[in-house]
Amino acid sequence: MSILQTIHGHDDLIRLDDSSRQTLCREIRDFLVDSVSKTGGHLASNLGVVELTVALETVFDTSKDRLVFDVGHQSYVHKLLTGRQAGFASLRQFGGVAGFPKPSESDSDAFVAGHASSSVSIALGMARARSLQKQDYSVVALFGDGAATGGMIYEGLNDVAQSREPMVMILNDNGMSIDWNVGGMAMHLSRLRSKESYLGMKMKYRASMEKVPGGKTVYRITSKAKDRLKRLLLPGTIFENMGLTYLGPVDGHDLPNLIALLSIAKRMDEPVLLHVMTQKGKGYAPAEESPAKFHGIGAFDPVSGAAMGSKPSFSAAFGETMMALAQENTKLCAITAAMPGGTGLLEFKETFPERTFDVGIAEEHAVSMAGGLAKQGMVPVVAIYSTFLQRAYDMILQDIAMLKLHCVLAVDRAGLVGDDGETHHGIFDIGFLRQMPGMMLLCPGSRRELAAMLRWAVQSHDGPVALRYPRGGDRSFTESDFLPDGLLAQKGLAARHRQGKDVTLVTYGTMVENAMEAAGLLAQKGVEATVLRCLTLAPLPVEDILALKAQNGPVYIVEEASGGAGIKEALAWELMKQQGGIRVDGRDLGRQFVPHGSVNKLYEALGLDAKGICEMVLEGLGYEN
Amino acid sequence: MSILQTIHGHDDLIRLDDSSRQTLCREIRDFLVDSVSKTGGHLASNLGVVELTVALETVFDTSKDRLVFDVGHQSYVHKLLTGRQAGFASLRQFGGVAGFPKPSESDSDAFVAGHASSSVSIALGMARARSLQKQDYSVVALFGDGAATGGMIYEGLNDVAQSREPMVMILNDNGMSIDWNVGGMAMHLSRLRSKESYLGMKMKYRASMEKVPGGKTVYRITSKAKDRLKRLLLPGTIFENMGLTYLGPVDGHDLPNLIALLSIAKRMDEPVLLHVMTQKGKGYAPAEESPAKFHGIGAFDPVSGAAMGSKPSFSAAFGETMMALAQENTKLCAITAAMPGGTGLLEFKETFPERTFDVGIAEEHAVSMAGGLAKQGMVPVVAIYSTFLQRAYDMILQDIAMLKLHCVLAVDRAGLVGDDGETHHGIFDIGFLRQMPGMMLLCPGSRRELAAMLRWAVQSHDGPVALRYPRGGDRSFTESDFLPDGLLAQKGLAARHRQGKDVTLVTYGTMVENAMEAAGLLAQKGVEATVLRCLTLAPLPVEDILALKAQNGPVYIVEEASGGAGIKEALAWELMKQQGGIRVDGRDLGRQFVPHGSVNKLYEALGLDAKGICEMVLEGLGYEN
Repeated sequence: MSILQTIHGHDDLIRLDDSSRQTLCREIRDFLVDSVSKTGGHLASNLGVVELTVALETVFDTSKDRLVFDVGHQSYVHKLLTGRQAGFASLRQFGGVAGFPKPSESDSDAFVAGHASSSVSIALGMARARSLQKQDYSVVALFGDGAATGGMIYEGLNDVAQSREPMVMILNDNGMSIDWNVGGMAMHLSRLRSKESYLGMKMKYRASMEKVPGGKTVYRITSKAKDRLKRLLLPGTIFENMGLTYLGPVDGHDLPNLIALLSIAKRMDEPVLLHVMTQKGKGYAPAEESPAKFHGIGAFDPVSGAAMGSKPSFSAAFGETMMALAQENTKLCAITAAMPGGTGLLEFKETFPERTFDVGIAEEHAVSMAGGLAKQGMVPVVAIYSTFLQRAYDMILQDIAMLKLHCVLAVDRAGLVGDDGETHHGIFDIGFLRQMPGMMLLCPGSRRELAAMLRWAVQSHDGPVALRYPRGGDRSFTESDFLPDGLLAQKGLAARHRQGKDVTLVTYGTMVENAMEAAGLLAQKGVEATVLRCLTLAPLPVEDILALKAQNGPVYIVEEASGGAGIKEALAWELMKQQGGIRVDGRDLGRQFVPHGSVNKLYEALGLDAKGICEMVLEGLGYEN
Repeated sequence: MSILQTIHGHDDLIRLDDSSRQTLCREIRDFLVDSVSKTGGHLASNLGVVELTVALETVFDTSKDRLVFDVGHQSYVHKLLTGRQAGFASLRQFGGVAGFPKPSESDSDAFVAGHASSSVSIALGMARARSLQKQDYSVVALFGDGAATGGMIYEGLNDVAQSREPMVMILNDNGMSIDWNVGGMAMHLSRLRSKESYLGMKMKYRASMEKVPGGKTVYRITSKAKDRLKRLLLPGTIFENMGLTYLGPVDGHDLPNLIALLSIAKRMDEPVLLHVMTQKGKGYAPAEESPAKFHGIGAFDPVSGAAMGSKPSFSAAFGETMMALAQENTKLCAITAAMPGGTGLLEFKETFPERTFDVGIAEEHAVSMAGGLAKQGMVPVVAIYSTFLQRAYDMILQDIAMLKLHCVLAVDRAGLVGDDGETHHGIFDIGFLRQMPGMMLLCPGSRRELAAMLRWAVQSHDGPVALRYPRGGDRSFTESDFLPDGLLAQKGLAARHRQGKDVTLVTYGTMVENAMEAAGLLAQKGVEATVLRCLTLAPLPVEDILALKAQNGPVYIVEEASGGAGIKEALAWELMKQQGGIRVDGRDLGRQFVPHGSVNKLYEALGLDAKGICEMVLEGLGYEN
């Protein structure tokens, strides 16, 4: 029996000796590589925090102490050590263990964590709740250096400094976020990493003084003098400038030292920032060499590290089209927020470095900066995942839409993303983008159509425009390029994929495949459906739908959007206003946060697969199922 | 003729000698006090930047150089100096000069600026556009120390540091935002303000070296050595840690020195941050003494500074109720983002300092911190203006709604705010809050109802809930407290204010007054209207509306929300689903950004006054007007 199998939480860990803990770390790494090679998942970041997590779970009891993750894809080791080892075979599968912290899964998961830079704020709230209620537990925030480009971290640190709440903030510094880090903060951290360690001496002195009666007071007084001395000798850190106690940098793979430091930090009655240096992918050669590849990965060969085949994606089509457009149009530039790889912009970045702006995890800045570029004559294309674009809601409204600037939002990972679950589905963007006055919203159904729409948005349009497209590639639906040339200029259009006299299905994007399949099932029951696809979601192609719909029968709107955040209600309103007495019904994802699972499994569970759509129509028509 | 009257832009300013510029500053102050005492407006911040703006407009030509304001209420002096002096009699009035920068008003207004902390990002975009297009103009970002609590500034500075784009960033440090400043950054700036001036020596050295042939190179080399020396002697600044050149602090009321420094900063081929100390309200005793009172003020007596009478506000009712609730409930705490005064929380803050968290201009942090508090058992009430809550869209979704946390959002300044215009109207919150699964949204129609709803939300509800209420007080409509006891627990309810058989008007909040007045006008034409008011906007009180509406005739939904960001479409959808064949129509603010002007004037212009509503109904019924 391995040591790992005997660990179910903090109480088991504190019983281990140093050497057993080292063995445990090796076992965890083997387990992670083996397990994730079968299920896919986030590997490199978890391999990097094995020692750090073992140290954390040893020093803190995360079933009552609160460990707040920041972008919790590095929570696998935490989950392994808190009773969820058996669940790893079903990692990120529908009904299985989530790839991110989830309080409903375990009391040891203190909070959800899908988006970056929020951990310090959440942890401070928890620390304040503890102090106000005179309770006794520790609060720890764990964030990466990637998240340190996000402005929200500073908002949190700023408030922590004035709060004086005892809490431990751990900066897990691996020198990269998903691809690589950028900006002044990265340069600052790099300088800190290379400075001589002042920490060792300080800690040894502190530890020795703590053993002496009254030594703690002596330490405090002398420590202040030492701090002043240190400031004369070493450049101050940003954290110290903000009034925080800074410890570090320390080697994040030195387990005994980590445990010793965390124990000290835990006992300090003030906010402490511990700067830990880790290596992404640590201990698994393929991941050490290509950490970005092993950030989030599908199933792979554990020996060679070779990934299983992947199909051409919408993101790749986006990147290729951007390449072509940039050669024609010197005003075009690309902006991404720490996702040049994920959004398909790597080749663009290499070919047109001066026109590529990777701003790090800083979606707000990305959008407002694009506003500045557009106001002064450039054509910025901002490529951000739908879920992360939520961060820039106000900036799109104030700094793009209000001035009607010609700025293109490339909304990647729109719709259900599958494995990553609640925090990552892109199911709100239609709702919030449609609300913005003057914002045009396009939704391609294929990679080829995405290319045509992007070209139109960059070259022929003027004003704010967003394109939303899903994770992955075209689905099996291969009929491509429905975009009638020039028609987009008419603003608002729909394509008819199938003609039938009895009912009309209206949808958009790749959901048209489910609708077409549903139409096939309906035909078997003797119901002939027209299938329409909206190419524009703002404005809505109301006239086109009325012109193309089946002569009789109700209209069903089927969409992959959160309840109330799609087009259903607005389209029904418009159809009703134009044609009184029209019957409209429909289905979306419902008013709920959608959990993780494969996209097809989620369609099935939510009644948006062909069978579910077919049943909805038959029910509406009064058929017995 | 005053000097001020002869100034229409940069070309006029550069002709003045030092002494005339000093006279100009005095004239500007007199003009501002006189003019704003009649129109109302932002006074204290503008009095603080008189010399700074004169210096900026002298060194830079803002008709081609780009001056990007951050929260542009301090742009009055800029407007005065760029040709808009005559318009100040109509400041902030419908059709008159805007209280914020507005490119459509003048080429000298580089961008809109209503929300904080975005100026550095926008300016960097502009600087990059300039460099990419090989154009020649300067870019200046002007932000306050209040905006420096907003994380977005760091995202901007982080990217500026790596960009190396020549641009001038001015930190206008008056030691307060609207009320006072908070956090580690404020402490850091306070330390910088008190440090010995190193700048004077450095600048004199630089200036002298620039006069010598080759001196610039010598300066650069020696400057590096000096910088190293300085770091040994002085604590580094956050800005220097991030890799930016920092100049300061300098006296913001020393005009010749400001002009000299800005001229140097303009010529440097790298990003420069200039730290300028100013005094809010400078030169007008009442504003120097009470800068917060003179931040945004209505008409006042220019001699005594006494403000004209103001009526009891929703914000005051909110504050009073919070006081009462806090005495009963020790879990209750209040969070505000730099607006303890504006949101009515001053007394609460004084009485319960340990349960008041003013986080500065940091809406994202405010909301996520509230999530942490709620998760650990406190009941946080987050009071933020509707327009600024847009900043926290993602945090409300991810860190409140996703965990169904019992957190109360007090959405102040919801609806049209009047004078402040486009950037400040709270006309999107219904749209984005309604989209969030599990979010309950309440809308009181009176101050008394706000108190009852807040009490219910804090004491009887569990889960995320938002209350939205307008700027100012009840309108003339005085029938109060429509809240049927306990009915809120049924989720979704409407109140009937008037019963008539022919048509139904559905509205919410204080807009019910316009609807009631419209019903009166309709009665004169022989049309009897039922007037219903929704107390909950999420969920929608569909059953109540169907039960209470007029027996015959269409339903008209009238709302003060941006087109597509209200309840119109969703309510119509629900009514239609429940009762086929029902005729529904309505009116909102349209899909546009609404300009400044008095709220009543805007109602009239947008057809939401009684007359406009009446005409819509008569038209729908086929009457000739």
